[in-house]
Amino acid sequence: MDAAQDASEPAGGDAVAAAAGPPTNGGIHPVLWRDGVVVMIDQRRLPLEEVDVVCETWEQVADAICTMVVRGAPAIGVAAGMGMALAARAALRAGAGAPAHFRAAVQAASKGLFETRPTAYNLPWALKEMEAIWSRDDLSPAEVVAEMERRAVQIYEEDLASCWAIGEYGAALIEGEQPVILTHCNAGALATAGYGTALGVIRSVHARNPRLHVLADETRPLLQGARLTAWELSREGISFELITDNMAGYFMSRGLITHVVVGADRITANGDVANKIGTYTVSVLAREHKVPFYVAAPFSTVDRSLPDGSAIPIEERAAIEVTGYGDRCWAPSGARVRNPAFDVTPARNVTAIVTERGVALPPYEDSLRKLEAK
Amino acid sequence: MDAAQDASEPAGGDAVAAAAGPPTNGGIHPVLWRDGVVVMIDQRRLPLEEVDVVCETWEQVADAICTMVVRGAPAIGVAAGMGMALAARAALRAGAGAPAHFRAAVQAASKGLFETRPTAYNLPWALKEMEAIWSRDDLSPAEVVAEMERRAVQIYEEDLASCWAIGEYGAALIEGEQPVILTHCNAGALATAGYGTALGVIRSVHARNPRLHVLADETRPLLQGARLTAWELSREGISFELITDNMAGYFMSRGLITHVVVGADRITANGDVANKIGTYTVSVLAREHKVPFYVAAPFSTVDRSLPDGSAIPIEERAAIEVTGYGDRCWAPSGARVRNPAFDVTPARNVTAIVTERGVALPPYEDSLRKLEAK
Repeated sequence: MDAAQDASEPAGGDAVAAAAGPPTNGGIHPVLWRDGVVVMIDQRRLPLEEVDVVCETWEQVADAICTMVVRGAPAIGVAAGMGMALAARAALRAGAGAPAHFRAAVQAASKGLFETRPTAYNLPWALKEMEAIWSRDDLSPAEVVAEMERRAVQIYEEDLASCWAIGEYGAALIEGEQPVILTHCNAGALATAGYGTALGVIRSVHARNPRLHVLADETRPLLQGARLTAWELSREGISFELITDNMAGYFMSRGLITHVVVGADRITANGDVANKIGTYTVSVLAREHKVPFYVAAPFSTVDRSLPDGSAIPIEERAAIEVTGYGDRCWAPSGARVRNPAFDVTPARNVTAIVTERGVALPPYEDSLRKLEAK
Repeated sequence: MDAAQDASEPAGGDAVAAAAGPPTNGGIHPVLWRDGVVVMIDQRRLPLEEVDVVCETWEQVADAICTMVVRGAPAIGVAAGMGMALAARAALRAGAGAPAHFRAAVQAASKGLFETRPTAYNLPWALKEMEAIWSRDDLSPAEVVAEMERRAVQIYEEDLASCWAIGEYGAALIEGEQPVILTHCNAGALATAGYGTALGVIRSVHARNPRLHVLADETRPLLQGARLTAWELSREGISFELITDNMAGYFMSRGLITHVVVGADRITANGDVANKIGTYTVSVLAREHKVPFYVAAPFSTVDRSLPDGSAIPIEERAAIEVTGYGDRCWAPSGARVRNPAFDVTPARNVTAIVTERGVALPPYEDSLRKLEAK
């Protein structure tokens, strides 16, 4: 198949153009801008408790990203944009409008937000979008504040629209009367502005074919699959079963998985994909069993400055996540641990990358470049 | 390589013949026959608590197997043998020596123990060993009891010796100055009479090369790796790191794992291997990365009555194991679950099968048959 042609005229394009907007996403909003504060549902406490965290400063947003109140690459990007809008507001108040002080304060916030988490590309992408505003000499601090708030909300709205388009493009790829989709981690409404990337595809498939069944990897150590994906699918009434991460191979070997759909934290120029730890293993299993492996992500996840995945920074998180869960520890005291939070799936294991601009097929160097130019 | 030759003259044979007996195993005894009762360490509570469970009846032994007080295929076999010895004692007391009643009671116990767990072949193997005694017409009930007790203790002792021989044969296969062995689940002292199969190999490698490093998969849902393997390795002072099951691919892709060694619950005539869920996935990863994949098991695990792994019964366990751990539930209420406890690794993914009779190489149909005849 011609990747360029596919990218410019993707399957399902008519459906995307014709529909009026995203269908229900169960009312899940992981990050909201509300009257000058940022409201997040605390994803660490889901599904047992539904509690909001309200951030009034960029430092609180940074802390929420670090501690994974909010997680998922697109949602982190949205949160960072809103965090910058808070920073600009605070700088305006504090600096009484002196442009040099104002910009220094905003720049410090950008640096602080950048350092929260290293892997998701949507974070530096959103910060760059904001920098394009606060670095302008022709705007007064008050104008910068207004423009940054406008852009932060726009990033949120664009992400919602992107996810919905991703869902429609992706759904057109899921053939079969009774598809069984495996997904890993949570690339859902909670990981984005609201509709989801991988779960956006699943939502859109389900809207067309209610016989869809989903297998959700629990996704140790933080159990985003068991807690968040299972919660979203339950709310949507989408048929699913929860499995531990080491079961996917068993079900594939028995022919019980027809497609894999996952999200992405960063996609490099050649189509390598950083995503939640364990994604690489799923991709190896999918190739072994000839199961199509789709990556669903907004174009803001694509980092064409990196030629391939070898240079993607992989966050290593605290040992306590692996020795137990929450306040419960089940490993012997003193046990040493490794805890890489992401891995890199090589482009050769990826059947297609589904973006809001269309579906990229191998070779991704070409197809992603063409989508970028759209 | 000639499999038959390798099987009859395995590498490391001299070391096995020369040594006097097993080195220390940290004093771990999962199943002990003590003055007519069976004493087990409660593996569900390790490593946080070291508590013994004392079984005075075969029904208590059956319950301990069902509820995984004792687990691991060889240890289940040892426990079943001792359970049968308890059953014979009780039948002798109850029946006052009437042979027909005695044998009916013993047969009922055999059926009850058989039905505890379906996958591990050492269980029916041990029950058959005991049946060869209680089905003899030439022995009085009192003689059967004495003979069954003797055989139960002998099965225990044979398993210890087998594990130690497996360790020595296996250690000879682990080349390199600084090997890093990945293991899955617990095929350790706790899973056997005391030295371990996969961990027997690791113990024997460590005795020769203290630079050995181990990566231990945590092994959801029951965390035998995080709890039991980590506990054994800590006690032995063997360098290790604990990882979640979905991380092995990451470390293999970076060249950081040099060998895989796992145990087995059942091995069929062609060399297919049933083992803890997730083993199959590790085998696919190992083949993808050209990492040798060794299975370590006593010959009592080999079921030559089954031509291949497709007929191995796979136990599916309770949903509550997957929705959380212990009394903690983290999935949304009502979430449906799949929970197969084992999977089947095809012979093509297995580099060698290490038994106490020597090392079997592909084609396993031939090499296992030759080892059986030894």
